[in-house]
Amino acid sequence: MPTTTQVRLAQRPVGTPDDATFGVVEEELPALEEGQVLLRVVYLSLDPYMRGRMSDAPSYADPVPVGGLLVGGTVCQVEDSRSEDWNEGDWVLSYSGWQTRAISDGTGLRRLDPAQAPVSTALGVLGMPGFTAYAGLLEIGRPQAGETVVVAAATGPVGSAVGQIARARGARAVGIAGGAEKCAALLDEFGFDAAVDHRSPTFAEDLAAAVPDGIDVYFENVGGEVTKQVLRHVNKYARIPVCGLVSGYNATEVPEGPDRLPGFLGLVLRRSLTVRGFIQDEFLRTHGRDFVRDMTGWLATGAVHYREDVVQGLENAPEAFRGLLTGANFGKLVVQVGEDPHRTS
Amino acid sequence: MPTTTQVRLAQRPVGTPDDATFGVVEEELPALEEGQVLLRVVYLSLDPYMRGRMSDAPSYADPVPVGGLLVGGTVCQVEDSRSEDWNEGDWVLSYSGWQTRAISDGTGLRRLDPAQAPVSTALGVLGMPGFTAYAGLLEIGRPQAGETVVVAAATGPVGSAVGQIARARGARAVGIAGGAEKCAALLDEFGFDAAVDHRSPTFAEDLAAAVPDGIDVYFENVGGEVTKQVLRHVNKYARIPVCGLVSGYNATEVPEGPDRLPGFLGLVLRRSLTVRGFIQDEFLRTHGRDFVRDMTGWLATGAVHYREDVVQGLENAPEAFRGLLTGANFGKLVVQVGEDPHRTS
Repeated sequence: MPTTTQVRLAQRPVGTPDDATFGVVEEELPALEEGQVLLRVVYLSLDPYMRGRMSDAPSYADPVPVGGLLVGGTVCQVEDSRSEDWNEGDWVLSYSGWQTRAISDGTGLRRLDPAQAPVSTALGVLGMPGFTAYAGLLEIGRPQAGETVVVAAATGPVGSAVGQIARARGARAVGIAGGAEKCAALLDEFGFDAAVDHRSPTFAEDLAAAVPDGIDVYFENVGGEVTKQVLRHVNKYARIPVCGLVSGYNATEVPEGPDRLPGFLGLVLRRSLTVRGFIQDEFLRTHGRDFVRDMTGWLATGAVHYREDVVQGLENAPEAFRGLLTGANFGKLVVQVGEDPHRTS
Repeated sequence: MPTTTQVRLAQRPVGTPDDATFGVVEEELPALEEGQVLLRVVYLSLDPYMRGRMSDAPSYADPVPVGGLLVGGTVCQVEDSRSEDWNEGDWVLSYSGWQTRAISDGTGLRRLDPAQAPVSTALGVLGMPGFTAYAGLLEIGRPQAGETVVVAAATGPVGSAVGQIARARGARAVGIAGGAEKCAALLDEFGFDAAVDHRSPTFAEDLAAAVPDGIDVYFENVGGEVTKQVLRHVNKYARIPVCGLVSGYNATEVPEGPDRLPGFLGLVLRRSLTVRGFIQDEFLRTHGRDFVRDMTGWLATGAVHYREDVVQGLENAPEAFRGLLTGANFGKLVVQVGEDPHRTS
């Protein structure tokens, strides 16, 4: 019988997830029933939202139960099939989680064509992160030609897409990232108009210099000190799509004062700001097709580039995930769980 | 020569405006030039935004200079005219400020018809406060039939209009006000579905009981403790038009911690909230005509009621203004500066 190795939530983390957070279990899979397929997981996506699922604090989705399989988007190959819809060797996008094999009845599977794009991009630029950038920027941020768009975690899969889509719409893209290497990539690889290193002691001044006309769209995915500095420069009628707040995901205590909420609401009032939280699935039905069309086109013309950070082996997923929350990765973080015959590098 | 008595900003207030804030000066007016009119101020509007003009902190409008005339909307009668457009006895809406007479070249004057509505309503339900409620609620709040709309300072000119317009659109209106008398008026006079007293020791529980289906629109005009309790109940996709934050207008220190901003942004994210600051003039061009049509209609059918709190005499404006910031008034606060031949009460 085939087996699956699973990474489960051994206990809820307090602060940064540590070794006690994760438990590894191998178990046998039952025989396939009629209509089912056996999936071999090739790539597992690691994304900041997973930190929320590990906690039982209120969130927009249910937490993973203690002892449960950690959730996550995956690219798989069909290893065995008792379904008319799927053949051995087919590539699919699924939500199989942190494991090496999974049985599916076909629900939620999306067929992937490895001839059209590397299959791992279905977890990044052509998948949920790319769509998050697309929908949040265009539907909420609504950048106009000549406006200034700022995004942090800018070499990540969401941030890099935000900046490049902004430029495709004629806006000026300013990226914030941690360290000189990432900032160089923002300019050289992703074509941002300016890059600012939030780890620099002159971050506040550097940011001010990078946005001489103020900020019209701030795509919020980090929070914390970066947000504090960005807010000093928002223009009247600026839009702030709130997509994530990764800098606070490991926080264990209510932050110390002063209480900045009254000041923030005052700023919202004085500058007529729009602050809008969103989860990408809200826009899937209305914007999903446009996204695939537009992003495929931008990739083909080179208007959008992407970068992947591929970690080998499911056993290294916990360490890679910890790094994701502190910006240790560089590009879309995926774990290669199984062999990909198309990957040459 | 005619004279005008002016209330000027003697010095910038720290915290609550006190006697030293205001200075009264009488001066002669020059003779009218060709094209000018002499206005006799009959009503002066007192509104929370004026507190912002007294400070030199950054705001959406320039501060009143020290020694300058305090600004404000007024209803005036033309006392003398050297303009072809205006005759003695005409009623106008103007922005003449805290004084008894003013000279105008006609710029910004709007003609009022005392036969159509009491002229003082041009400062309230048919004026800026009514339009603030209309534009903010309908354009940003967008209440749907059956949804729950919450507004504080609910017996005020903005709040009472918000609740009644919400009901006219089929939504459920919950008003927050200070004290039993105001709460009774919300139900009996303004037709709210529920009223909650924010001065009650059981305010948090009372609010929870008043919004069993959560809150879909929170029209923000007070801030502070009320906002804190309201945010516990906002539904997914709730809209929060931010129109004012009167509870903090006299604040002199940055509020103590904990810092609630990260938690607020987290709520914006988890519940996909829309938070949108606005000043009513943003919508004047696009929604001004609709407002006059709709509000006139609602007043005629009795769908919207209004209440005025008329203070007699310009000399009492400073004290009345202080009371406005703490909720001492009851209804739209106007100062009757001069005689109104139409007022019978």
